[in-house]
Amino acid sequence: MNVDVCLSPDLLTRYDLEGKVVVVTDILRATSCMVAGMGTGVASITPFESLELCLEMKGKGYVIAGERGGQKVEGFDIGNSPYSYMSEEMKGADVAVTTTNGTRAIVASSAADIVVIGAFLNLSPVVSYCKQQSKDVIVVCSGWRGRPSLEDTLFAGAFATSIGYELEDDSALMAVDLYSSVENLPTVIRNSAHARRLANFDVDKDLDFCAQIDSFDVVPIVTDGVIRL
Amino acid sequence: MNVDVCLSPDLLTRYDLEGKVVVVTDILRATSCMVAGMGTGVASITPFESLELCLEMKGKGYVIAGERGGQKVEGFDIGNSPYSYMSEEMKGADVAVTTTNGTRAIVASSAADIVVIGAFLNLSPVVSYCKQQSKDVIVVCSGWRGRPSLEDTLFAGAFATSIGYELEDDSALMAVDLYSSVENLPTVIRNSAHARRLANFDVDKDLDFCAQIDSFDVVPIVTDGVIRL
Repeated sequence: MNVDVCLSPDLLTRYDLEGKVVVVTDILRATSCMVAGMGTGVASITPFESLELCLEMKGKGYVIAGERGGQKVEGFDIGNSPYSYMSEEMKGADVAVTTTNGTRAIVASSAADIVVIGAFLNLSPVVSYCKQQSKDVIVVCSGWRGRPSLEDTLFAGAFATSIGYELEDDSALMAVDLYSSVENLPTVIRNSAHARRLANFDVDKDLDFCAQIDSFDVVPIVTDGVIRL
Repeated sequence: MNVDVCLSPDLLTRYDLEGKVVVVTDILRATSCMVAGMGTGVASITPFESLELCLEMKGKGYVIAGERGGQKVEGFDIGNSPYSYMSEEMKGADVAVTTTNGTRAIVASSAADIVVIGAFLNLSPVVSYCKQQSKDVIVVCSGWRGRPSLEDTLFAGAFATSIGYELEDDSALMAVDLYSSVENLPTVIRNSAHARRLANFDVDKDLDFCAQIDSFDVVPIVTDGVIRL
């Protein structure tokens, strides 16, 4: 079995997803939110690429979550903090979500056999699940507006290290090397460009939360465009 | 001053090149060939994206160099080995070249103020030259068919480390981290996916040559589509 890493959704055309398991990650913060929400009782999450389509779901009984450039969008119920996905009111909720990077990566990965939502928060459950499938795996990093990001690449490295499959290509080699150099994950993530970009928005609590490993024993799967356990 | 790293030509649309110096690199082997050739007397090198356009230059007094998938193309004078650029007959020659990845990166970088050809072979001269320009720098990695490559990312890390500018984005941070973990550059490059891909073509001598640092004191510059000193 091979594990490969796609460092940006912009590069997805260079990878053949057919017959493979894709693990989509957007550590800051889309997939971390999804794992936290699904781990505390959210019923389903449906990603939308456009704000408009997502907003329309408000009238259909959905909680709507909207983020652009790191901030909650006016008129949406919640933004992109994992804490907002874990409140009492979210238990049993169906969520419609749109974010700058993560939702695009999820939608663009639909050619894969199975699309899994991965974050540090559910690293080991995702690794175990992927091993059971006995298929090659590609970790798709959401990045930031098409550019690779440190925190997503670190997750890819952690995943590839943990699953122990053959490293298919240089991006996987580089991600594993990067992860092996980490001494303190929260510190490294706080130093990423993304974290520096968000620094004005009072998100230190979110950053530290998203750097936690194995807090939730859930494996959210995307089926027909909807994420469920 | 900032230094940024673009890990693949596919990502160039995400970077603003205007007013900046771009250092294009394709360690295995296009820019290493160019530096070796220019360092031993080649007069000029003109990159072409298509085999057909490059082939037409044969009738116009050019030595034509063609590589696809790691091998010399039928009907071309030379392929993609740096040694073929350093022969006695190449002194004073005008070369027309087309390669799988490197020429594409050079052509796609033309929006920059200055486009420089970089390789381990001329690392320090390129760093010194860039410092003299007092502009932000972007290292553009050629990669392999749109995917990031280990050896180009290592060069980007070596360059960013050596120039000491502020690291603009996560790709630069990751490249610097990667390079800092290298103990033996030729060994690491021989383990790259690209080197493994070329392993059948008897290129060990080329790989070791391209991993040498500062063998040539030249800074090839691309002006109006032609590379000269």
